[in-house]
Amino acid sequence: MTVRIAVAGASGYAGGELLRLLLGHPDVEIGALTAGGNAGTALLAHQPHLLPLADRVLVETTAENLAGHDVVFLALPHGHSAEIAARLGDDTLVVDCGADHRLTDPGAWERWYGGTHAGSWPYGLPELPGRREVLRSARRIAVPGCYPTVSSLALAPAVGGLVEPEVTVVAVSGASGAGRSLKPNLLGAEVMGSLSAYGVGGTHRHTPEITQNLSEVAGGPVKVSFTPVLAPLPRGILATCSATLRNTDEDVRAVYREAYADEPFVHLLPEGHWPTTGAVLGSNAVQLQVTVDPDLNRLVVVAAVDNLAKGTAGAAVQCMNLALGLPETTGLSTVGVAP
Amino acid sequence: MTVRIAVAGASGYAGGELLRLLLGHPDVEIGALTAGGNAGTALLAHQPHLLPLADRVLVETTAENLAGHDVVFLALPHGHSAEIAARLGDDTLVVDCGADHRLTDPGAWERWYGGTHAGSWPYGLPELPGRREVLRSARRIAVPGCYPTVSSLALAPAVGGLVEPEVTVVAVSGASGAGRSLKPNLLGAEVMGSLSAYGVGGTHRHTPEITQNLSEVAGGPVKVSFTPVLAPLPRGILATCSATLRNTDEDVRAVYREAYADEPFVHLLPEGHWPTTGAVLGSNAVQLQVTVDPDLNRLVVVAAVDNLAKGTAGAAVQCMNLALGLPETTGLSTVGVAP
Amino acid sequence: MTVRIAVAGASGYAGGELLRLLLGHPDVEIGALTAGGNAGTALLAHQPHLLPLADRVLVETTAENLAGHDVVFLALPHGHSAEIAARLGDDTLVVDCGADHRLTDPGAWERWYGGTHAGSWPYGLPELPGRREVLRSARRIAVPGCYPTVSSLALAPAVGGLVEPEVTVVAVSGASGAGRSLKPNLLGAEVMGSLSAYGVGGTHRHTPEITQNLSEVAGGPVKVSFTPVLAPLPRGILATCSATLRNTDEDVRAVYREAYADEPFVHLLPEGHWPTTGAVLGSNAVQLQVTVDPDLNRLVVVAAVDNLAKGTAGAAVQCMNLALGLPETTGLSTVGVAP
Amino acid sequence: MTVRIAVAGASGYAGGELLRLLLGHPDVEIGALTAGGNAGTALLAHQPHLLPLADRVLVETTAENLAGHDVVFLALPHGHSAEIAARLGDDTLVVDCGADHRLTDPGAWERWYGGTHAGSWPYGLPELPGRREVLRSARRIAVPGCYPTVSSLALAPAVGGLVEPEVTVVAVSGASGAGRSLKPNLLGAEVMGSLSAYGVGGTHRHTPEITQNLSEVAGGPVKVSFTPVLAPLPRGILATCSATLRNTDEDVRAVYREAYADEPFVHLLPEGHWPTTGAVLGSNAVQLQVTVDPDLNRLVVVAAVDNLAKGTAGAAVQCMNLALGLPETTGLSTVGVAP
Repeated sequence: MTVRIAVAGASGYAGGELLRLLLGHPDVEIGALTAGGNAGTALLAHQPHLLPLADRVLVETTAENLAGHDVVFLALPHGHSAEIAARLGDDTLVVDCGADHRLTDPGAWERWYGGTHAGSWPYGLPELPGRREVLRSARRIAVPGCYPTVSSLALAPAVGGLVEPEVTVVAVSGASGAGRSLKPNLLGAEVMGSLSAYGVGGTHRHTPEITQNLSEVAGGPVKVSFTPVLAPLPRGILATCSATLRNTDEDVRAVYREAYADEPFVHLLPEGHWPTTGAVLGSNAVQLQVTVDPDLNRLVVVAAVDNLAKGTAGAAVQCMNLALGLPETTGLSTVGVAP
Repeated sequence: MTVRIAVAGASGYAGGELLRLLLGHPDVEIGALTAGGNAGTALLAHQPHLLPLADRVLVETTAENLAGHDVVFLALPHGHSAEIAARLGDDTLVVDCGADHRLTDPGAWERWYGGTHAGSWPYGLPELPGRREVLRSARRIAVPGCYPTVSSLALAPAVGGLVEPEVTVVAVSGASGAGRSLKPNLLGAEVMGSLSAYGVGGTHRHTPEITQNLSEVAGGPVKVSFTPVLAPLPRGILATCSATLRNTDEDVRAVYREAYADEPFVHLLPEGHWPTTGAVLGSNAVQLQVTVDPDLNRLVVVAAVDNLAKGTAGAAVQCMNLALGLPETTGLSTVGVAP
Repeated sequence: MTVRIAVAGASGYAGGELLRLLLGHPDVEIGALTAGGNAGTALLAHQPHLLPLADRVLVETTAENLAGHDVVFLALPHGHSAEIAARLGDDTLVVDCGADHRLTDPGAWERWYGGTHAGSWPYGLPELPGRREVLRSARRIAVPGCYPTVSSLALAPAVGGLVEPEVTVVAVSGASGAGRSLKPNLLGAEVMGSLSAYGVGGTHRHTPEITQNLSEVAGGPVKVSFTPVLAPLPRGILATCSATLRNTDEDVRAVYREAYADEPFVHLLPEGHWPTTGAVLGSNAVQLQVTVDPDLNRLVVVAAVDNLAKGTAGAAVQCMNLALGLPETTGLSTVGVAP
Repeated sequence: MTVRIAVAGASGYAGGELLRLLLGHPDVEIGALTAGGNAGTALLAHQPHLLPLADRVLVETTAENLAGHDVVFLALPHGHSAEIAARLGDDTLVVDCGADHRLTDPGAWERWYGGTHAGSWPYGLPELPGRREVLRSARRIAVPGCYPTVSSLALAPAVGGLVEPEVTVVAVSGASGAGRSLKPNLLGAEVMGSLSAYGVGGTHRHTPEITQNLSEVAGGPVKVSFTPVLAPLPRGILATCSATLRNTDEDVRAVYREAYADEPFVHLLPEGHWPTTGAVLGSNAVQLQVTVDPDLNRLVVVAAVDNLAKGTAGAAVQCMNLALGLPETTGLSTVGVAP
């Protein structure tokens, strides 16, 4: 079987990472590559690492250009996917790396993004309870945000009963998480040698997505204090997550070990090893470690992920594999590029 | 007045930063520069940025070599300062950048460092309530740890009543915080492009120091969940601190504004501006911002500091100024080197 | 004496560095701060490290706003300084950090920049033979480009006779050298973890400026092969310069030692020490080292400079000091901020 | 066919990169993993990115432990490979990533490394004229140094006649090139934010290797002025190479295009595109661009490579493929991990 795919937003970071992974996928043929303002330019000008696609030219992001493919990946700013998806056939698998269809609550959408909610699609985090089966038959998939991916996987095994339903997440991210946005604070001269928090006080748009995931797993409302921090590296998120333990005699490591025992991409590290983002660079792996702070009776989980890979494009490919009935790990790796 | 100073541990990062600042101090004359294993080598081999001291050779760290100065700065591994201080006259001002004399509780010392407690010295964080006056007459001063400096200043205005006495601190630090230790995980190839947490679960030795500070300010026990994260930059700490607000109608920004209104080095930024470590590089400033997450009724404070400057050597110079009756800001700046 | 200064282009990197240095200058009072598109915004939004100027608002860059100061620093894109300077009195010292008045040959200007040459001003590199005296009475000064500063100082002692008149310069620079330009290749995510050459083959605009300097020192044409490389650091240039030695029995180190023996900012390092940009961060120092490759009979000089300090703003302050009859080193330092 | 391989020096950077690539090689089974001082420890402690080998423990580097494999990769300090190779059967393919067998001239070995030359092995740079065929039947292969790889490929098409036989190479490298050496100047705090040249004046040990390669290609002596520069990134080398053009009317781009037209890993970029190391991160590709500086009639070539991949481990796998009769590109990619 050869799957013909298209990528909308191929000149951005998510689009580039999708293509990097798809070039190594044995069952994929790369079709249309589209862009907005960059339409008409050579892909190589934006993605100099994709040598096998050096002769490709970007075409405009239109439903016409995206039609006729088995799978269409959307890596677009939010607000653009619903209209395009509506014009692609129901049998086309549409995998949206943007935010449009992640939130299930229209009120949350309006509060955090503004405008009308475009409706929710099956959520592409198969490691959450019950999600994998839904994805197997999906033809529309909403890829999770990068922070929600790592935060939800870090805390999902705990919120079901181990801890009180109020969690704190401080997640440090590399600069590619902001996309190819031309903002002064994202310039190399300012990113390097500096650390900065942003979206403090629960104002980052990934907050409701984390809340939604954890609340669903917990079966009741979970409050999330979320702070993202920008650090000087290209890729990677390290999330430090904590919550007060309930009175329990459960072995927290055993709970985590069991939760992810059969997962190909989520790894609880051996005791004494702590996750680093360098170790997951370019890979689809999530590395986790858990401990308990005895002075506060508080669970602390540290998790590392590559925001562009498992945090975006890797998850998209993983979901494509599931939806197409391919082995879930095809074209994906748990081996990072380090150092 | 010219103050003659000596620096023990002049080949390390803290020693280098002390000398950098002291070279710009108008009232200081630089005397003996000592080292352990590096004794006998040129200072320039270790501190290539200190051109005016290019002809200096390091001598051995002994009480004899340090004697005869008005001020002796100790930038040594913990466990070494008590013996040296005992052999320097009581009228010599000894400023210890190490941990030996920070903790007041011998039990805490034994738990966290092991061995016998050498006793506590006046704690060199003049911005904490009541500390400045003590430092004016001190002849032995314990300079705070870098994480305790930024964490304590970030939360001190709150723990007296604004928030519940359980706080969470996730502090991201540059690599110089670990000193010039030859460990594989501190090599450039491994630090760059990676983020890692360490001392997770309350096991970092700065935890009891933060706890001690905040508990004293609060007038009762404060529990501290502290996680340090190593990030790829040479200097700087960004601390994200949070705690549940008590029922209060106090204006939290007003509380912070008043707390530091007269402080020359601690700055609550104007609303809408958030601290970055790049902005305090090389300076003695602490930049703060506060907000409240309405969904959790949780105070969130972000603070930035240069771990080597206000976090170590700048604080040492500030304390020297106080103890010698010099203007507190002499030789120090609130202007960072950015970008 | 208090000198009242204005800075045009205060929201950019050069403008910020000028203000950082001028805040530490004992004889300066900071007056108007102007900007183009950023006029009307708070300086702190662009220069978060300049806390003492936190209440300043940028005004528009007009001759009216710049009038009435003793010194006006121009940190503007090229093509803007002549008109402004013409409207400021002849007794106002105008120090231009831009390129407009560096080249003496109108033909070179037209080739490299296009348009009409605005005429040349005294060139602000006092360490070149004969330049210091001219600067003492200048009221218009053209600050050298960052690459020309380090390259010219590295090779000036050699081109007068030690080497053949064809030199190779490969200069690696941090990202601030490109200014606050919003270009994708300057984004943190792309700068970090990558190295790139640009302006290869003699096409960078600093090439004719280096050629002009070295040819004047040599008293005849010197050919310059110049390649700049962008590296992942905020500041600093390291230039590797080489040329074939003439038949000579001169001691090249002695030649360099003598050339800069009385210079406060240019330092030939002791043998065995090699320059690093980290050691000059934030300082006005140039660090040099020279050697001879015996297999090729080729002189190799390595030089380090902070592109924003001695490479731009530090040179501007140094020239102001000269032109105003102040001690040349006032407000400047040879001590870097390291590590 | 499944090839059973062993890696000696599996705890180092070259060893880690070998294993990363070999984990993705379809025909390889990973056998013994050996180390020196790290024998007895878990591989994961040194290579946290190699999750599929998380249960492996390092054994001692002895001929006994390495025996019984089809291929043995040696990633050891120089001076260790000859003795081990002598104790492995002649039918075992031994691929040495160290320097021991690269130089053909015993005198050069003695001058640059000291001690007795262990003899030369077939040189693992198949893209040089005539080398590929030799490698197909080799059972001992010397993998080139990282700088010689990129420098030789950048200049090989030119030294045969296009240019005068004196070339200048300034090559900027990431920190992993120095290996996991515990030296202060390789610490993250010192590498980040700084640039430094080393081995200046032709004293770096890769100089004779570049000279050997280019002289053989040229059919006569080529003089090489080589300066390596350390920059703050984990991986990657960008080499700027130049030489005076001979009187020629040849189209230099055409010469380069033809030279590498059939090479799977060496890519002359389309005009207007310049190599970046970020684009080759983790890949086996070499990206090249050439131009002529008309003012000096000088050829300038810029080349980018990942020092650990094509610069070391990728070349080793490529050579293994050749020697075993596998398709040369098996398990290797030209797609980098960017940004």
